[in-house]
Formats: sequence, C-alpha cells, structure tokens
Amino acid sequence: MALEAYALGALPEVRAGADIARLIVDSGAQLRAGDVLAIAHKVISKAEGRVTALGDVSVSAAARELARRTQKDPRLAQVIIDESAEIVRAEPGVLIARTHHGFVCANAGVDASNAPAPDTLVLLPRDPDASARALRARLRELAGVAPAVLITDSFGRPWRIGQQEVAIGAAGLRVLEDLRGTPDGAGRRLRATAVAIADQIASAADLVRSKSSREPVVLVRGMERHVCEQEGGGAAALIRAQGEDLFR
Amino acid sequence: MALEAYALGALPEVRAGADIARLIVDSGAQLRAGDVLAIAHKVISKAEGRVTALGDVSVSAAARELARRTQKDPRLAQVIIDESAEIVRAEPGVLIARTHHGFVCANAGVDASNAPAPDTLVLLPRDPDASARALRARLRELAGVAPAVLITDSFGRPWRIGQQEVAIGAAGLRVLEDLRGTPDGAGRRLRATAVAIADQIASAADLVRSKSSREPVVLVRGMERHVCEQEGGGAAALIRAQGEDLFR
Repeated sequence: MALEAYALGALPEVRAGADIARLIVDSGAQLRAGDVLAIAHKVISKAEGRVTALGDVSVSAAARELARRTQKDPRLAQVIIDESAEIVRAEPGVLIARTHHGFVCANAGVDASNAPAPDTLVLLPRDPDASARALRARLRELAGVAPAVLITDSFGRPWRIGQQEVAIGAAGLRVLEDLRGTPDGAGRRLRATAVAIADQIASAADLVRSKSSREPVVLVRGMERHVCEQEGGGAAALIRAQGEDLFR
Repeated sequence: MALEAYALGALPEVRAGADIARLIVDSGAQLRAGDVLAIAHKVISKAEGRVTALGDVSVSAAARELARRTQKDPRLAQVIIDESAEIVRAEPGVLIARTHHGFVCANAGVDASNAPAPDTLVLLPRDPDASARALRARLRELAGVAPAVLITDSFGRPWRIGQQEVAIGAAGLRVLEDLRGTPDGAGRRLRATAVAIADQIASAADLVRSKSSREPVVLVRGMERHVCEQEGGGAAALIRAQGEDLFR
C-alpha cells in the first residue's frame, strides 16, 4: 500500500463557464479508475462564476459594524455576511464564520488571493459536493474513467497553528473510514471512531502544490480502497452538526 | 515535485528500552537524507516506558467525580488528570483535555488500543520533540543518514467529523511554511499566514498505515525542501498558545 501524489500541469486562467474536466483531460493527465483528483476550489469557483467585484457590493449597517470590529474592508465584510449563516468570532484581524454549507472557517471562505482581477473576491462554490459530482460525470464522459474528485480549501484549526487543506466537496470517495469495532494489532477493539480520509488526502495533495503556481489539480494514486463507483455522501459528511461541536 | 509514502515492514512488539532506530534499520529500510519518517507515537511511548497498568492507579476524589461526569473508568480518569494541565470539556462520553505539553485532545492522549497488555494504558511521550531528536540522532549513528523524524497521533477536530493524524514531535523538519508576503499566481500578496506542513505530512503518512497492523513507521519521500540539517523548533511550534485559540 503506497501513496503517490503529484500536481498536473498548469491550467490556463479559468473564467466563468470554463470546462474544468476538459482542461484536465487536455493537460495530458493519465487518469485511472481508483485515482483521486484533489482540486483547489478556486478554479471551480471561478468556472462557476462565484466571483464578486468589490465595486458591486452595497454595504449594510451590519457590514459596516462588522468591518469596524474586525478592521476589514466593509465591502469584504458585506460579502462575508452574505456567505454566512452565523458569525462565530469577530475581533481585530479575526473573522470566523459558519457558512451556509456549514463550514466553520476564516472569512466564510471568501478570498482575494488568486482572484481573477484586482478588487475581486472568490467565494466558495455554492454546493461543492454537487460541483464534485458534476466534474466527475464530465470526466467520465470525456476520458472514459471516473476518478474520485475532491474539492479542497485551506482551513485554520482552533487549537493548532497553521492551515491545513480539507475537503469541502467530494464525489466517488468514502470520506470517512469507520474504525469502530475494528480490532487493533493485539485483537482489542479500537476506541477511535472514524478517520477523516478525505481531509487527509486533501492534506497530502496540498504538499505537492505550490501556492503561487497555477497547478490547482493534484493526482493522488494508491487510495483505490476508498474510491467507489457511487458518488457517496460527499464532504458534507465531514461537517460536525451545529450544537455538536466540541466546545459550545 | 511528487510525494511518495509507504509503510515500512512490521516491527516486532516494542517493550520498554527498545531501540526503535535499530528496529527501523534492521527492517531493511533504504533511508535517504531528505526523507521523512512518520512514526505513530505508541511505539515511542512503549519504548520510553510511558505505559501505566490500571491496577497500579490510586483513584482520587477528583478522578471519581470526573469519571462520573464522563462515564469513564475512574482509574482512566485519574491517569488523564495526571497527564493534563486543564480539563477543557467533560460530559458523558467526552473528555477533552489540554496536556502538559499543550496539546488539546481527547483523553489527554491516553489510549488503551495497541497497549502492550490488557488493562494497561499508553501515554504520550513526555517530550515528543526530544524523542524525535533522539531517534534522529540514533538513526544518523546507525545508518549514516538523518531523515527528518515526525512522531504522530490522531486528534479530533472541534468543527469537523473524523480524526486526523497530526505531528506531536518533530526533528529536522520545518513544521510550518510561512507564506506571508508570498505572491500568488497573479503576483498579489497571499493572505494565508502559514501552512502546517508537519501535520499534512502526518496525515499523508496515516493514509498508508493500517490501524490494525504493526506498521507504525511510514517513509515519506519528496519533502526534501522542508527537511533541514538542524533539528528545528519541533512540533511544539504547532501548538496554539493558551488564550490564543479561536473560541475562548
């Protein structure tokens, strides 16, 4: 059992309506069933038109107040409010929100880096699991094989320093490995409940992708046992239900 | 830039005083400078004698009360108290603590799975960064090369389902990659602060290690740019300072 991961070649700049599956196939990637493609979400967001120009944002009183508390641009604060179900924490330089999807992350996933133009913001895909399923279906159509697809983003961790790449969308992958009842090496029952396979694959993929490059797609080989023909429940299964988080 | 990871062969059962570096070298591993060895902490703990027999534990009133609140064995509760600087959350089935090292994790890292005998508990190494440095020095002595060494454990995440492997000890690896000021693909400054490289390598390694096997050591190749001759600050740099976590 060995894992191998490498970034596919650079993709051309992605605009709204782009056919990402076509760009991947045209890059010359040799895809196999059982492979996992881990894709940084920004190209998906851009292809789906999930981009907002700061100049188009109307700032509410609530956004003005949030911008004051967090020392952020009021237009950015407005977009974050629009993307959020709940503001979890707001203080100077820190804005953590629960998105409409349920992700708890900085700035509700709204980001200005790698945006298509200055003064624009890239939002998370509206339904990353649906995006992953659509991309997988299109790959099957174009290439005749359907690798599992992960759509990923970098999240901070409450108790640890540094960001880690996680899966925000998934298709064709069992995102959790349930170990309850599995015997350990000595035949005793393991206490661990489940391993976040999709997040670990996202993290592995991030290690071979230069943040400053235009190589958003990483091919991960060796995870065949987690890849399935069906689309599976998606990365939404990794979201801890509100009220079941570990500190409130 | 490609990542490759595979588990080394099974190690014999590890007892107190075992020379883990010797076991690794004797397993026939072909080590190179620039490699990373990611090692599940339990073999390190066992070699260091960090094992407690439940029968030897004297239960305090505080442990009895904690056991009642969490529905755990009072002797286990006592050992968790001994390993903790602070109990972060205690309720039926849930016990999250801040260890003396500063790790926030379930049961202060105390675990009964893969313990050397029934009714024994495996604790975290007392100083996992020191353990990693010692193992690296011994590998240099025996094999003439000094791969980076990570000591890892599975931690839960407050906002996400499933455990993820993280680095609790490190030697010879830059555990964080600081991206502040790095330009993105369009030449703009990236907002991300730092990437938790060591945790992502730990996660990648976990994907090739069967939980029920005796294959605690994973060789990770392709991370040469994060490996350094010096020991570095260790995995302690990944611990968010108390009072700087994201929700209190």
